Amino acid sequence: MPVNLSAPNPADLHPVPGVKLGVTMAGVRKANRRDLSVILLDEGSAVAGVFTKNRFCAAPVQVCREHLAAQADVRALLINTGNANAGTGEDGLIRARQSCIALARYLNLAPEQILPFSTGVIMETLPVDRIQAGLSAAIADAKPDNWAVAAEGIMTTDTLPKAYSRQVQIGGATVTITGISKGAGMIKPNMATMLGFLATDAKVAPGLLQALVTEAADASFNRITIDGDTSTNDSFVLIATRQAAHAEITDLNSAEAQTLRAALVAVSQQLAQAIVRDGEGATKFISITIEGGRDEAECAKAAYAIAHSPLVKTAFFASDPNLGRILAAVGYAGIDDLDQSLIDLHLDDVHVVTKGGRRPEYREEDGQRVMKQSEIGIRVGLNRGTATTTVWTCDLSHEYVTINADYRS
Amino acid sequence: MPVNLSAPNPADLHPVPGVKLGVTMAGVRKANRRDLSVILLDEGSAVAGVFTKNRFCAAPVQVCREHLAAQADVRALLINTGNANAGTGEDGLIRARQSCIALARYLNLAPEQILPFSTGVIMETLPVDRIQAGLSAAIADAKPDNWAVAAEGIMTTDTLPKAYSRQVQIGGATVTITGISKGAGMIKPNMATMLGFLATDAKVAPGLLQALVTEAADASFNRITIDGDTSTNDSFVLIATRQAAHAEITDLNSAEAQTLRAALVAVSQQLAQAIVRDGEGATKFISITIEGGRDEAECAKAAYAIAHSPLVKTAFFASDPNLGRILAAVGYAGIDDLDQSLIDLHLDDVHVVTKGGRRPEYREEDGQRVMKQSEIGIRVGLNRGTATTTVWTCDLSHEYVTINADYRS
Repeated sequence: MPVNLSAPNPADLHPVPGVKLGVTMAGVRKANRRDLSVILLDEGSAVAGVFTKNRFCAAPVQVCREHLAAQADVRALLINTGNANAGTGEDGLIRARQSCIALARYLNLAPEQILPFSTGVIMETLPVDRIQAGLSAAIADAKPDNWAVAAEGIMTTDTLPKAYSRQVQIGGATVTITGISKGAGMIKPNMATMLGFLATDAKVAPGLLQALVTEAADASFNRITIDGDTSTNDSFVLIATRQAAHAEITDLNSAEAQTLRAALVAVSQQLAQAIVRDGEGATKFISITIEGGRDEAECAKAAYAIAHSPLVKTAFFASDPNLGRILAAVGYAGIDDLDQSLIDLHLDDVHVVTKGGRRPEYREEDGQRVMKQSEIGIRVGLNRGTATTTVWTCDLSHEYVTINADYRS
Repeated sequence: MPVNLSAPNPADLHPVPGVKLGVTMAGVRKANRRDLSVILLDEGSAVAGVFTKNRFCAAPVQVCREHLAAQADVRALLINTGNANAGTGEDGLIRARQSCIALARYLNLAPEQILPFSTGVIMETLPVDRIQAGLSAAIADAKPDNWAVAAEGIMTTDTLPKAYSRQVQIGGATVTITGISKGAGMIKPNMATMLGFLATDAKVAPGLLQALVTEAADASFNRITIDGDTSTNDSFVLIATRQAAHAEITDLNSAEAQTLRAALVAVSQQLAQAIVRDGEGATKFISITIEGGRDEAECAKAAYAIAHSPLVKTAFFASDPNLGRILAAVGYAGIDDLDQSLIDLHLDDVHVVTKGGRRPEYREEDGQRVMKQSEIGIRVGLNRGTATTTVWTCDLSHEYVTINADYRS
């Protein structure tokens, strides 16, 4: 059961001028499933992306990096589910390139103008023939108001499609930002991967796009974790069709850039948090904030140690305020000179620990009250500096084990 | 259900001359439970230990470190279950010291000659009064052939006591090594902690003991992981009563030292592996070997990434040869310049992956056959050097979630 998440209403998803989306059933792994999507971009669009840091990155990720590095004028994204084309060696690279060549032929483009994305079973051969056979139907389906369908088309074990949209005013023009994402584990069982696609018509100088996508990812997809596993295929792409009627944004410090950036971050955070809300077996949405660190890196260490601890996650599943587990996780987070006698811990509004020990005033029933909520905030004060960070995660339930143990069988 | 583990036969546990063990029911947390143990050492014994690296280490660990640093002549160990005395701040330190003072009075020793150990619920006040009240009964129970009872006395959620023993010939004398351990998660749910106590009568120079205990821990307890959580209370202690009738060992490179070291490592590995075999919810015992690394540190990174991956662990629980998850874990292990096209993967005798891709000859039924075993070996070749390492872990089952989610409720 997703945590406070519902399917998007297609009427809420504003089309982005210059973007069309098409989806079809290509039978990549299973029949009768929307598993092949294309996102077609008008000429003049700019595209930037961030990709998995996993050294065992999938073939499509390698090809995306090559095509973006070639500074080709990207005009189409090709996304299949059912097969991740990861752990497939040299043959996988060839097949990823074949997919691009096939779509490029239909669209009269060069293969470098296509970015390929795959998500699904690892270590299986990508059925390029089925993808090629599905392309004409996907292209025929392409239309601007197809975001909700595309959100469904990139799902694997997600229980709900994920899509958000908003509009902001920039330089007197209405600018749209619409995005979709998928994923229910940082790496999905066989169905690997987080994917995120965000498009805007903002007229932003192409040279600024990489900074914006990196910043948006750092504030959103790079702050979520479900099980600590990093996918071989994670990809997040920002598209700017640049068709809005305002003056071009050329300075990241301008008021216009700030407006755009805030909106990009906001939609990215919604898309990223939706992945946690739909996390495999999730019953709780947990925000972990570390305050008073010397720098953000050590705050992140502590936050992820808590977020990845199976003991913390199972306690949240049980609504058991077994909060010593949080202290223990902070203790092994790898902050070498951490002084435990300075540590504070709050659970929402409940002050549990001060100076590294349980507060005499703390009552277990207060902790219990918060633990029963579906949305919970953990706040740890390190009291050794001014840095802070927040990550979002979910609990670890029986359902997680069931999904991941039983998926392929 | 523990994996290929059974309770020790008391007749197999050789007494160690100079060591007596006593156990009683002190009602630390629950009534009618053996929860308080003393290990009494003859004068002339030497003691060394290694302790948790968790910065949030428990009060008894801090006191152990102080007492060992004071180079006091350690004569007794005091161990309680039911309460970890961790996350208890300054008050916890006072209570750990009070326990030592109480036992020291009974034995006419200085408090610094006592080492305290606690395991159990975190963030609760240690009931020193109950421990003090139980001391006379524990001391009265002390006898040399009480190892099996002590192994039971230090259990928390362990399903079986853990004790091993062996004898070796050194310099014409029979030398005994007997040890006990507890733990079923690297940190137990509320019942935190791995504890290990190893005693020998070998006549080893006291100055060599720290090197021997560190070496034994590195080859055993430091190579196991159940859930990646590091306890606040982990402790492993080596006692040498030095009563054996051989010439004193003063050189770590001597043949006698090698014999002793090999026996210490062997018993330590049995004790450590027993913890994994009794791991919370474990149904499989998994050995992970990384070969061909540049150094042992990067081999360990890859091994632990595999061992901690919830996706790998749930696949083993399901006997599902979903082996791409192992490659993905190696990929995010943090080996920055890893070349995926060099990676090899074996599952026992089955060669699954070569050059980073699935071997055409690999058949899923071969992987399936190995996955159904209760003991499984994973072997990853990085093919970039000559270093190697092995760690031991277990799978992640529904039972793990049940134990950790439901324990306190």
